[in-house]
Amino acid sequence: MSPAIFVDALQVELQTLQYGQYPPELYDPIRYIMSLGGKRMRPLLTLMAASLFTDDWRKAVRPALGVEVFHNFTLMHDDIMDQAPLRRGQPTVHEKWNGNVAILSGDVMLVNAYQLLLAVEPDRLKPALERFSRTAAEVCEGQQMDMNFETRWDVTESEYIDMIRLKTSVLLGYALELGGLIAGADAETTQHLYEGGMNIGIGFQLKDDLLDVYGDPAKFGKQVGGDIIANKKTFLLIEALQQAKGPLLDELTGWLAKTEFDKREKVKAITAIYDQLGIRQQTEARINDYFACGFANFDQVKADTDRKNVLIQFTRQLVERES
Amino acid sequence: MSPAIFVDALQVELQTLQYGQYPPELYDPIRYIMSLGGKRMRPLLTLMAASLFTDDWRKAVRPALGVEVFHNFTLMHDDIMDQAPLRRGQPTVHEKWNGNVAILSGDVMLVNAYQLLLAVEPDRLKPALERFSRTAAEVCEGQQMDMNFETRWDVTESEYIDMIRLKTSVLLGYALELGGLIAGADAETTQHLYEGGMNIGIGFQLKDDLLDVYGDPAKFGKQVGGDIIANKKTFLLIEALQQAKGPLLDELTGWLAKTEFDKREKVKAITAIYDQLGIRQQTEARINDYFACGFANFDQVKADTDRKNVLIQFTRQLVERES
Repeated sequence: MSPAIFVDALQVELQTLQYGQYPPELYDPIRYIMSLGGKRMRPLLTLMAASLFTDDWRKAVRPALGVEVFHNFTLMHDDIMDQAPLRRGQPTVHEKWNGNVAILSGDVMLVNAYQLLLAVEPDRLKPALERFSRTAAEVCEGQQMDMNFETRWDVTESEYIDMIRLKTSVLLGYALELGGLIAGADAETTQHLYEGGMNIGIGFQLKDDLLDVYGDPAKFGKQVGGDIIANKKTFLLIEALQQAKGPLLDELTGWLAKTEFDKREKVKAITAIYDQLGIRQQTEARINDYFACGFANFDQVKADTDRKNVLIQFTRQLVERES
Repeated sequence: MSPAIFVDALQVELQTLQYGQYPPELYDPIRYIMSLGGKRMRPLLTLMAASLFTDDWRKAVRPALGVEVFHNFTLMHDDIMDQAPLRRGQPTVHEKWNGNVAILSGDVMLVNAYQLLLAVEPDRLKPALERFSRTAAEVCEGQQMDMNFETRWDVTESEYIDMIRLKTSVLLGYALELGGLIAGADAETTQHLYEGGMNIGIGFQLKDDLLDVYGDPAKFGKQVGGDIIANKKTFLLIEALQQAKGPLLDELTGWLAKTEFDKREKVKAITAIYDQLGIRQQTEARINDYFACGFANFDQVKADTDRKNVLIQFTRQLVERES
């Protein structure tokens, strides 16, 4: 079974989705943000997980798209809160329309996500929606923690890991769990899938932080050092703030306090501090730990080897990304 | 069966609701807005409808509170969009905290609403959530239409009725339908309940518009004429704009165009225009039509007379309100 079959199935169903028509200010932004693309990582994970236990994995397509619509809802609302001008190189909804439209369209998207999840068969519907709702609330908790961290300089490593776990990883975990649940997997198996997704998700987010500093500019899609320029509280910065002492700490906090600076100079200086503290190696080690845990979780899942390899290969690509 | 038994059951369950704890910025606003009170009209309607068909109406308490949490979610987000400073005499969430907190807390409230609705018994869960989701999307459609109407002077009566139907009445209809559904009523019966709630809801909203102009200042909670001062597009103003001709239309649009004016003078002048056109009588006639339709819908519901009288009496009080 090739991953392309899942990509195609999602694409076909995505084309047929009717979000609604009137008033257009409510539904056009949904079509707009859904058309901006993205890897469709979450629904693909749902389908691959479902295919481990049933040939009838197509019954997971609509619920899988519910997870994707939910993910895009969080992007629409996060972009308002972060005052982000661009999303995937295009104007954000609140920029293209306005803030009120982005609030209300997002609200309907959250309802749409539930509507798609209602395609789960009745005997599995309640647990699927209970777990989805718990996950959705956690994603909001993670976003609020992320906003709170912006004005704090004493964020600990464990607080940071907890934030990224909630903000991004639990939804990857749920995407896999949902596929298992729909396909009739038992509770132990769906738990392994969930934890696998969550661990891979944390590693994935840490890799995002790492690539911002140590990514290959030729391969990395965004500006290398963007997080450093913006004082973004990444895993690397939090580690550096905890580990630097004396003059090195003074130098680091000095750079963070500067309101006017040469961007390249700041990136170079803070990268040098990270180098001196060995932050790169420490971060890589943590990423590898999380990935290893994730794959160990997948190892626990009893399923056809070929089908499992599709999931594992797909996940490896995510993990080995350079951009 | 006295209405007090339903009020008490809701109150007890409301006290026990756990919305979540961390981070506090996410969950404190939910407790705050839920504590501001309100008539709890929607969940009461759900319980009264359920009691028509079962003694075990208490199983409808949590789902009924889901409707109430949803209603308060719409208030939280509408207040951001309308830049409202006060809600029930207290600071709105976006004023007391900030806009981002109000967006994200609202998002979690919508999730919470679904979580409470998951208490519907599994064999009725799917229809209950399908109808809830459809209704929730419609409420958002109504809010977007309401915002669009702010900058339009050619809103027709039927557009206006459609807007209030979506923004407020469908949720009253759903509250009643949900009670019937949970209690095992058949599709025809839940349809009558839904339509009854919707018709009463439209009449209720039109009465709101009427009381703003013709309410007794001693009984009316808000400032009489508030809608007139704010150029709010009410049923009365829309009718007047459609019916006034020649100098009367010029006078009306003149007042609407004024940016500086004596408030009492404007209220008096526009009320006089309404009087000249007979807008009060026309509005009262429409309100009575909707109420009559609503009670006729209830007449179609086959249930124990005493229990039905509780619902009808409660609805009559809503209908006969002077504030």
